Amino acid sequence: MSGNWWEKAQQAMDDKVKPPGSLGRLESVAIQMAAFLETLEPRLERARILIFAADHGVSAEGVSAYPREVTAQMMRTFASGGAAITVLARTLGLEVEVIDVGVDAGLPSLPGVVAAKVRCGSRNFLREPAMTSEELEAALEAGRAAVRRAVDGGIDAVGLGEMGIGNTTAAAALLSALTGAPPHDTVGRGTGVDDQGLARKRSVVEAALELHGPSLGDPRSALAAVGGLEIAALAGAAMEAARWRRVVLVDGFISTVAALAAVRLDSTIRPAFFFAHCSAESGHRLALTTLDGEPLLDLAMRLGEGTGSALAFPLLKAAAAVLREMATFSQAGVSDRAGEGSP
Amino acid sequence: MSGNWWEKAQQAMDDKVKPPGSLGRLESVAIQMAAFLETLEPRLERARILIFAADHGVSAEGVSAYPREVTAQMMRTFASGGAAITVLARTLGLEVEVIDVGVDAGLPSLPGVVAAKVRCGSRNFLREPAMTSEELEAALEAGRAAVRRAVDGGIDAVGLGEMGIGNTTAAAALLSALTGAPPHDTVGRGTGVDDQGLARKRSVVEAALELHGPSLGDPRSALAAVGGLEIAALAGAAMEAARWRRVVLVDGFISTVAALAAVRLDSTIRPAFFFAHCSAESGHRLALTTLDGEPLLDLAMRLGEGTGSALAFPLLKAAAAVLREMATFSQAGVSDRAGEGSP
Repeated sequence: MSGNWWEKAQQAMDDKVKPPGSLGRLESVAIQMAAFLETLEPRLERARILIFAADHGVSAEGVSAYPREVTAQMMRTFASGGAAITVLARTLGLEVEVIDVGVDAGLPSLPGVVAAKVRCGSRNFLREPAMTSEELEAALEAGRAAVRRAVDGGIDAVGLGEMGIGNTTAAAALLSALTGAPPHDTVGRGTGVDDQGLARKRSVVEAALELHGPSLGDPRSALAAVGGLEIAALAGAAMEAARWRRVVLVDGFISTVAALAAVRLDSTIRPAFFFAHCSAESGHRLALTTLDGEPLLDLAMRLGEGTGSALAFPLLKAAAAVLREMATFSQAGVSDRAGEGSP
Repeated sequence: MSGNWWEKAQQAMDDKVKPPGSLGRLESVAIQMAAFLETLEPRLERARILIFAADHGVSAEGVSAYPREVTAQMMRTFASGGAAITVLARTLGLEVEVIDVGVDAGLPSLPGVVAAKVRCGSRNFLREPAMTSEELEAALEAGRAAVRRAVDGGIDAVGLGEMGIGNTTAAAALLSALTGAPPHDTVGRGTGVDDQGLARKRSVVEAALELHGPSLGDPRSALAAVGGLEIAALAGAAMEAARWRRVVLVDGFISTVAALAAVRLDSTIRPAFFFAHCSAESGHRLALTTLDGEPLLDLAMRLGEGTGSALAFPLLKAAAAVLREMATFSQAGVSDRAGEGSP
């Protein structure tokens, strides 16, 4: 991505028939997209939300408001089209692919669910690393493979999404590992634990960070130690999408932490990222700030599944269209600012 | 609108297969919509952005960064499809109708532009009322008529939009008149006046408020004294849309001030309003607060034309779909929160 494209895109945007800067964030998004795609006519037609799903060994520690079997139950809900993300995707014209990278249940041939199970849930990272290095590699590869399918399918953008009871605990531990921030700043209420549950989550993360301390300096071993199978798959997907120069819509807390892990593994991929929203989960702002990411939406959502990615997609599509299709002052025959010359 | 519908909609939303409240603002929007439409299956398929355009006598006072003829030039740009709003509407699947209620130019049969000119620009309210009461009534009626065309066309929602060089000055004066706030709090840079222009705008509004003081206590005479033809048309449109029980997407500063005037004329219409975004124009937050309106987007936009309305429409459509189409916990066979019973 050449610096030149930023300048060219900024110039093209300033020529559009509107007061300079008056489309606000839509302009900066369009300019980032033009620079990333190296074109002044960016086009986002088709997007696919990739929902990576897995269970977590750490869910045995009572860190979630919901029982572990909800992960598998939600896979059936995705397949039947009644989940939030499937409703949003249908309404907004997005595709969805659900990838089982580690759900702790047999899921025989659910429609729209890709079987890529690495194991039935990650290991309990309060006792041992969540994944072996082979399991981590398999999860990363499941993410990459999903993106290759999307690219083969002609997709312009991928939206990150996930499902996994216990995964805000894993994401918080990973965020602490990657940033050095204490659990107090990274652990939140997830799907809605009470004060006691929140205290338990924090002490679980604290203990895990202590146990795995020596492994946490390196992003790959941090992912294996306290990550999750779907978190690793998200990181693999983010890296692969950037490699194929596809726009990556980063969803909420878990997706953003996975995106951060991906950037730590490959620092060149950051320009592919567009941050969909600021989640109500308390650690999300820290993850965004660490990535220097400015979210598009702030709707106090905290569901995951890629719901933020889906809602932000029309904004990205609109930003691309503004740069591609708006007339310039001279094309439109519209007078520029008083005293600054006119056509 | 019965209080009972709020409760029923809240209950229906809480039954959906997601942690309670986890869709944030999308949930509150869906509930407001259900209560307003009196259905648990709200549906927003078709929306039309109504762009009312007019010139302003006060533009003679040098209150805008752009010359007056830009209003007419932009009408041609709307017609040719190269304006921001036409690009956004095309991209997001919305209809657009442009209504000339007072552009100071002959605009012979531009495609997509409805001729409803009340006069060639409002009068200069620094010297006399912007409109006579007959002109005000004609402008309100032009707004109502546009909504009746939309209703006849099967539209579920109307988005407010406007174009008119000088109209942030008129909107600021009207906002001061309706709220008592000083020009310091209502006058902003509009399309981008410099410090000198801003000072001039403020003193123009101050002088107008002094001149028309006795008329400003009543919303109708305030509209006539310091409003604008497109601002009055927007107010008429807002009232008529609420009467037909159509969702009203309120755009930026000018549309919000028009919506406030409409509420002052008819206090029953407020539940029809959904606030698209918080504009970067400095008086917008005050206008929103006065209406107790919470904007959906905050993208630092300040263009008008209905661009915020267009960008927010997918969010409203998505909110309706969530309430209408998401499965409940029991339909999906998903376990509810731990210890709170499960199916």
